[in-house]
Amino acid sequence: MARDERGVTAQSEDFASWYNEVVFKAGLVDRGPAKGTMVIRPYGYRVWEHLQAELDRRIKATGHENAYFPLLIPESYLSREAEHVEGFSPELAVVTHAGGKELEEPLVVRPTSETIIGEMMSKWISSHRDLPLLLNQWANVVRWELRPRMFLRTTEFLWQEGHTAHAGAEDARRETMLALDIYDEVARDLAAIPVIPGEKTPGERFAGAVTTYTIEGMMRDGRALQCGTSHYMGTNFATAFDIRYTGEAGREELCHTTSWGMTTRMLGAVVMTHGDDKGLVFPPRLAPHQVVIVPITRGGNTAVEAAAEDLAGRLRAAGVRTHVDARAQLTPGFKYNEWELRGVPIRLELGPRDLEAGTAMMVKRLGDAGKQAVPLDSLPETMPRILDEFQAFLLARATEFRESHTRTVDTWADFADAVATGWALALHCGSTACEEDIKARTAATPRCIPLHADSASGNCVRCAAPATYGKRVIFGRAY
Amino acid sequence: MARDERGVTAQSEDFASWYNEVVFKAGLVDRGPAKGTMVIRPYGYRVWEHLQAELDRRIKATGHENAYFPLLIPESYLSREAEHVEGFSPELAVVTHAGGKELEEPLVVRPTSETIIGEMMSKWISSHRDLPLLLNQWANVVRWELRPRMFLRTTEFLWQEGHTAHAGAEDARRETMLALDIYDEVARDLAAIPVIPGEKTPGERFAGAVTTYTIEGMMRDGRALQCGTSHYMGTNFATAFDIRYTGEAGREELCHTTSWGMTTRMLGAVVMTHGDDKGLVFPPRLAPHQVVIVPITRGGNTAVEAAAEDLAGRLRAAGVRTHVDARAQLTPGFKYNEWELRGVPIRLELGPRDLEAGTAMMVKRLGDAGKQAVPLDSLPETMPRILDEFQAFLLARATEFRESHTRTVDTWADFADAVATGWALALHCGSTACEEDIKARTAATPRCIPLHADSASGNCVRCAAPATYGKRVIFGRAY
Repeated sequence: MARDERGVTAQSEDFASWYNEVVFKAGLVDRGPAKGTMVIRPYGYRVWEHLQAELDRRIKATGHENAYFPLLIPESYLSREAEHVEGFSPELAVVTHAGGKELEEPLVVRPTSETIIGEMMSKWISSHRDLPLLLNQWANVVRWELRPRMFLRTTEFLWQEGHTAHAGAEDARRETMLALDIYDEVARDLAAIPVIPGEKTPGERFAGAVTTYTIEGMMRDGRALQCGTSHYMGTNFATAFDIRYTGEAGREELCHTTSWGMTTRMLGAVVMTHGDDKGLVFPPRLAPHQVVIVPITRGGNTAVEAAAEDLAGRLRAAGVRTHVDARAQLTPGFKYNEWELRGVPIRLELGPRDLEAGTAMMVKRLGDAGKQAVPLDSLPETMPRILDEFQAFLLARATEFRESHTRTVDTWADFADAVATGWALALHCGSTACEEDIKARTAATPRCIPLHADSASGNCVRCAAPATYGKRVIFGRAY
Repeated sequence: MARDERGVTAQSEDFASWYNEVVFKAGLVDRGPAKGTMVIRPYGYRVWEHLQAELDRRIKATGHENAYFPLLIPESYLSREAEHVEGFSPELAVVTHAGGKELEEPLVVRPTSETIIGEMMSKWISSHRDLPLLLNQWANVVRWELRPRMFLRTTEFLWQEGHTAHAGAEDARRETMLALDIYDEVARDLAAIPVIPGEKTPGERFAGAVTTYTIEGMMRDGRALQCGTSHYMGTNFATAFDIRYTGEAGREELCHTTSWGMTTRMLGAVVMTHGDDKGLVFPPRLAPHQVVIVPITRGGNTAVEAAAEDLAGRLRAAGVRTHVDARAQLTPGFKYNEWELRGVPIRLELGPRDLEAGTAMMVKRLGDAGKQAVPLDSLPETMPRILDEFQAFLLARATEFRESHTRTVDTWADFADAVATGWALALHCGSTACEEDIKARTAATPRCIPLHADSASGNCVRCAAPATYGKRVIFGRAY
């Protein structure tokens, strides 16, 4: 049977259909009218707000300041960095008319802001005392998408984009790694996604970057999802936008710049890392509701309703995001299914008999099977720990899944087998042509050269030329 | 002398030049490359973040949920509400090309989101149980601006836009007033702007609204600035976008909708309400730095520098946003001028002799004249109160200014005289033609029919026809 009573295709049967159905049915998103656009509904937006708050706190704690740069960028700006314009041209949305007239120069809706921020940096930086300049922006960006997929590839998405300028390569490279560390921490600690940080191969670099780093997560279909990227630009954008400073010795130098971004794509990553046949599973730290209380009041029972509200108040006072589902027209069973579909970590059922016993029935969304009677009095005290355990359980489960779907391979047959269901750790020659050959045969691409990996040498798993990078590369099919 | 040593035109001499110079020199903004666009620099963006955090808290506390709707709206959507498209057409920026092709239907960059949110509401609402639907969005909007002015009129600005749907006129009207109350509170309590809440006359209504409410602030040149608006749409947008619900009795009804917005324009309001010849004056609750410590260390004095950092740490622990200006290459005098220009409420000067005496010299940006020795030990305890008093002082000063620049007038001569320097409280016939006549003669427009005002009757101050509205209308020149 392809669909259970919630009307959702089983994840195990058709992952893509499961994903497309569950993000809509759980109320995370809706389709916008313009091609590939997405409405983020309140239930999805709250997840973004939780991620945003924690990411913003870490960005500020490391000395970055938020600012806001214009959405509309003169088309000519993009052309100043040759690789950059080549990479982004096919995806641009262009404003040609405004205020009732045709514009002299078309404006592009920002696909990313290196160019316009580069232009301002050039204005703001003159001395070494102005460096490092550490900026961040929370914004929407538009990249025209022909095959849209909610959260993962949409014509418009939300993100933060860090943009920094430094007095030398060393400081800029340190910044690139700092941003990557923040992403790694946020992905692990909040989203419970055990990402692998690493460097992109030349063929997978950001348009205009010298080095691109990424954190890669494994989804429950074995595919990889890039969860955040951090780029060292060298002096490429500084040259294009004339970002210079006068050093202590009085000599004029080019700045070294970086940029780094994390997006609403992370919501898709959460869905695909933790969800199951029943629907979503939210890590408590991102969950809109951490606990849902379902009062069992067939025929109406004001004592039960009052006790549910009282418990919710005490849980909220203990810092637990709690929702009481008091909808009179629906059965408890319907509500159980709905909150499972919507991924609430902990459900508390409270009926007249429970109330008499001074307990509620607790059901976790995953993990220990079955219902468990828990004392009402101590719940505000125990719930934060229960939620922490659930968060840790999800991270451990995802780690175990990733490990059991990653194979170290040395033959082409094993490689092809591994990337059919997960990741392959393989030696590679480093040639882009060989990467393309692998992609054409298996749909797998090099996800990253992991930062933390043993050194390894030998021959390319595909073409048998001597391996490069000094370690194994992660290959996998990707979103 | 038109310019003091900071290089800023005196406010008293040329208010418009003063404003344009001060917002740039204080580091709040910069000009974007596309016509009328604005870069909000970190020092300005932090003010927006403080306002945003408090406004968001109040919006959520009253039951609204944040969501995000697409930036790009099919052009045809706007045409569905006749007044709405007429009002916004001249200001639209239009995307005609995307993904390398000409679009079949052009997309407008949202000037406001009633249309696209209306379309989604129509999808999401079916029963009376879905109502009220209380949504809010934090977003950028674009309205093409031929005569841009930083913060006040820019081609792109940031705002929140609330959009709600209700089961009847009464509930929707209550919502409209609730939003207005939130704006009134935020303007007063955070921005220290003693706004006047009131209703707009028909000629000043939002395009598509049945009733528009506003909060109006008086700037220090006597002009009015609309600081936030709240609209009751009746069933206009519900008709255009087919937003219907089935009532308890099973009958299908049109929803009543509202929308309300507050924007980055508020930063301009803060500048023009509190600033003076020396530059900005920030209300402590919005100030990026509430206290700046200037260590006086000519020739270098590590004990003073350490004491400044220690004091800053203790002030921060007490919740005071504190900045130490430790720049070695600048004189204390230069720093005093700069932080006065940048509007920091409290400056603490700390030199070797102060340190010996266990005190710092405190200088307030406005109010009590002169320096005052304050004990270092008790500053973390006393500073929150000092800041509260400064905040209250600014509100009282602005209230006094507004009152002394508002006159109740009954003759045309007095009216013309009053609106040359401030506001006139006058009886009006209510005709749009008469409003236009007044505007042509004096540049003054009806700012609002104040909610809280004594009833009054008589004849129109301009045309002598019988007065309408039952009370006096506020007239003034406006931004």
